[in-house]
Amino acid sequence: MQPFQSYMNLALLEAKSAANRGEVPVGAALVGPDGKVLAVAGNQTRAACDPTAHAEILVLREACRMLKSERLSGCDLYVTLEPCPMCAAAISAARVRRLYYGASDPKSGGVERGPRIFAHSQAHHVPEVYDGIGARDSEELLKSFFQERR
Amino acid sequence: MQPFQSYMNLALLEAKSAANRGEVPVGAALVGPDGKVLAVAGNQTRAACDPTAHAEILVLREACRMLKSERLSGCDLYVTLEPCPMCAAAISAARVRRLYYGASDPKSGGVERGPRIFAHSQAHHVPEVYDGIGARDSEELLKSFFQERR
Repeated sequence: MQPFQSYMNLALLEAKSAANRGEVPVGAALVGPDGKVLAVAGNQTRAACDPTAHAEILVLREACRMLKSERLSGCDLYVTLEPCPMCAAAISAARVRRLYYGASDPKSGGVERGPRIFAHSQAHHVPEVYDGIGARDSEELLKSFFQERR
Repeated sequence: MQPFQSYMNLALLEAKSAANRGEVPVGAALVGPDGKVLAVAGNQTRAACDPTAHAEILVLREACRMLKSERLSGCDLYVTLEPCPMCAAAISAARVRRLYYGASDPKSGGVERGPRIFAHSQAHHVPEVYDGIGARDSEELLKSFFQERR
């Protein structure tokens, strides 16, 4: 298994765990320049009563806390779903090196559609982006989560 | 003085206080449906080692904590500078009713330029937007802050 698949699997585990807590199943992992996993998290918006508590924001904040830095140069972020505009802009602000994501998100995504955060000069740093990693597992999680709630 | 000016003055005080702490001078105030001030904050990205600790995000999170809700329907946000894409998307996610902001931000703004967060279908809620409120004071604060640092 390629390293990027192992890291995405960690993010998928966090997404599953989020679903079990009744949160939208999205998970993320933040990996340091040496390959060490610095933070993992799933969505917590409901439990934390915090609209900013997306998986991506949680791992960015946790890694910054650990490294005592507001920049995560050389770090890579893995997330099971295309980031929303808020998270994409936070990823840029944190100077994340590479963004790997799973499923596309036509409804709320901000990377490959709509605001296309990284395509404007207001994004002062643009990560390398790799999409479709573990997309099927991520889609299935989201589909069954929303089907159960209808 | 109009109420919106008083609220913006609170945000400007927070921006000044941020400058005194060596943070980029941007301040915000979050006001409830009854006109009560729920939260005020200035930027804290440096002190908190947190790239998401913009004034807007801080007041959104604080008000959600107070109201035990991830939605701030009927609440209004005052901020001294045009929000960046991250903050604009968070304002939408939190269902803020009205956004009042001061100076325009060609370099990093995400409301009237670049990603234009509220102009895409991925923004599931669009606040009423009032710009240019207290813009001159805000611009002077930012200008003198960056001049001193050059």
